Amino acid sequence: MRGVILYAPGDVRVDERADPKIVEPTDAVIRLSATCVCGSDLWPYRGIEAVDGPSPMGHEYVGIVEEVGGDVRTVEPGQFVIGSFFASDNTCEICKAGYQTSCVHRVPMGALGAQAEYLRVPLADGTLVATPDVPPDDLLPSLLAASDVLGTGWFGALAADVQPGKTVVVVGDGAVGLLAVLAARQLGAERIIAMSRHEARQKLALDFGATAVVTERGDDGVAKIKDLTDGLGAHSVIEAVGTQESMMQAIRSTRPGGHVGYVGVSHDVELPGQELFFSHVHLHGGPAPVRRFLPELIDLIWNRTIDPGKVFDLTLPLDQAAEGYRAMDERRAIKTLLQP
Amino acid sequence: MRGVILYAPGDVRVDERADPKIVEPTDAVIRLSATCVCGSDLWPYRGIEAVDGPSPMGHEYVGIVEEVGGDVRTVEPGQFVIGSFFASDNTCEICKAGYQTSCVHRVPMGALGAQAEYLRVPLADGTLVATPDVPPDDLLPSLLAASDVLGTGWFGALAADVQPGKTVVVVGDGAVGLLAVLAARQLGAERIIAMSRHEARQKLALDFGATAVVTERGDDGVAKIKDLTDGLGAHSVIEAVGTQESMMQAIRSTRPGGHVGYVGVSHDVELPGQELFFSHVHLHGGPAPVRRFLPELIDLIWNRTIDPGKVFDLTLPLDQAAEGYRAMDERRAIKTLLQP
Repeated sequence: MRGVILYAPGDVRVDERADPKIVEPTDAVIRLSATCVCGSDLWPYRGIEAVDGPSPMGHEYVGIVEEVGGDVRTVEPGQFVIGSFFASDNTCEICKAGYQTSCVHRVPMGALGAQAEYLRVPLADGTLVATPDVPPDDLLPSLLAASDVLGTGWFGALAADVQPGKTVVVVGDGAVGLLAVLAARQLGAERIIAMSRHEARQKLALDFGATAVVTERGDDGVAKIKDLTDGLGAHSVIEAVGTQESMMQAIRSTRPGGHVGYVGVSHDVELPGQELFFSHVHLHGGPAPVRRFLPELIDLIWNRTIDPGKVFDLTLPLDQAAEGYRAMDERRAIKTLLQP
Repeated sequence: MRGVILYAPGDVRVDERADPKIVEPTDAVIRLSATCVCGSDLWPYRGIEAVDGPSPMGHEYVGIVEEVGGDVRTVEPGQFVIGSFFASDNTCEICKAGYQTSCVHRVPMGALGAQAEYLRVPLADGTLVATPDVPPDDLLPSLLAASDVLGTGWFGALAADVQPGKTVVVVGDGAVGLLAVLAARQLGAERIIAMSRHEARQKLALDFGATAVVTERGDDGVAKIKDLTDGLGAHSVIEAVGTQESMMQAIRSTRPGGHVGYVGVSHDVELPGQELFFSHVHLHGGPAPVRRFLPELIDLIWNRTIDPGKVFDLTLPLDQAAEGYRAMDERRAIKTLLQP
């Protein structure tokens, strides 16, 4: 089959890869209907994360079940399914507490390479959720978004304790940040302030429910948020970047007793203990346990209550994956959908 | 009046200080019935925090109201009152959310020096809580504990989301850690593991409700907690020290999705962002908003449900404050009560 391989920073190609097979009796193999490029794929693409030899890429996927192992009980060939970036058993104590991305048996899907024609999914019963039927094509982008960026924005909003009547700030205008805006809207926030200086992204943020846009960053961004919140800071701040600057901006934009939900994959961040101590904020985040939210998110998409697929502003055939990476790297595209 | 002054690291003396007077119409002046030395007083005493000239010391206090300013409405001369280490208006939006130690009008009581015969308390209506009557002498130590260490341990337990049926670890065996054990017991925790290698403190932890004691520290302490929790870590970990080692021990002892409540005043701590991200823990803490808990804690003490005063294992006249500091510095005493 064909699949995306990263050979070195900046060098992604679509090459022949071995067809996935059932390895464990708990596996499924799915034929991908759509896959995409993640903001986190850009870290190794940009050489910020080490690339250790040719690596299959991609961890976001929706598709049709082709084959299942002998122990799989809840999904079957022909069903349309969605999974997320960690396979999880969904039965261990950590999964039952809602932290499937820390499942004691978790398997990182990135290593299996979802930017491809087919994908082996371990722990299929715990990982995959079937839609009510095979969806119409126009729902594919939104269902694909549920595989990671929607679920991640959703987790960011829950980790930031977004609630009706509250003021929410979103730091980061990538797909996750934009979908955190959508999540905050769904969760009933009264004010949603999107931090963005990029016109297309500002428009999408407003479309998803932002009530204001702030273009300032860093200390200026913090000062602007304080201005907008009687000097106190926001109740809830969602951090969707993962840098030192964005984390400190998020913490400093939050009022005492407020909540920071951070979902940007952390790179070279060191949090100063004393400032954190006196900030009085709640801090929670990490790799979003998207599996926890999938049934609810699929329902919202299926009923056309939300349209998170709008974050895909570039659609390319899988063979043109390299252009999809380039467009995101250069911020010409928010997110690239790849058609296998 | 007489009061404790820190002249330099290791040099505390009881000297004459000016008698406190009503300055603002919202002030009260109280005659102290008891005061004490805090673990956090040891930071400047040890020279770890800079000492900027002679400084009055102490921020824990109970006593009888002597005089109130013209705007004070809720306390009156003759009442026995308890306050905490920040004066707060208890009416601003931050106070109403339960974070009185971040009150927009807060005043640090340490600067006013509660290790003395008399104390001016700003924002008396917001800060002071009167007991039902003047208490019998044997309740004084417990009521004094409510002024800081009990309320701080209580906040640590709430910040760590201690709940019935859960496993709780307490890192730190000072007065705050020991009272966090008491708080966890009151909040219904099933297992409470106290980390201590000091026999008298271990005994008090068990007396307060600990179900196990672990003597290992650092990585060995983490490994021991994992052993005791099916390899997962505790649901709730209360950090009551404030060092890099104790914070990392707390974070690493917590299961994914679990909660760290940290109340040890942070010194030279830098939290590694990536490890925190993948730990999946909740992090919350800071200066305990003791005022939030005072009515409930006074009630528990008044009804003799709890006896937090046991943390005072040394009682001295105010004039012997220097010996009280030395005994705590050398870990000969857990906590020193001073009688003015």
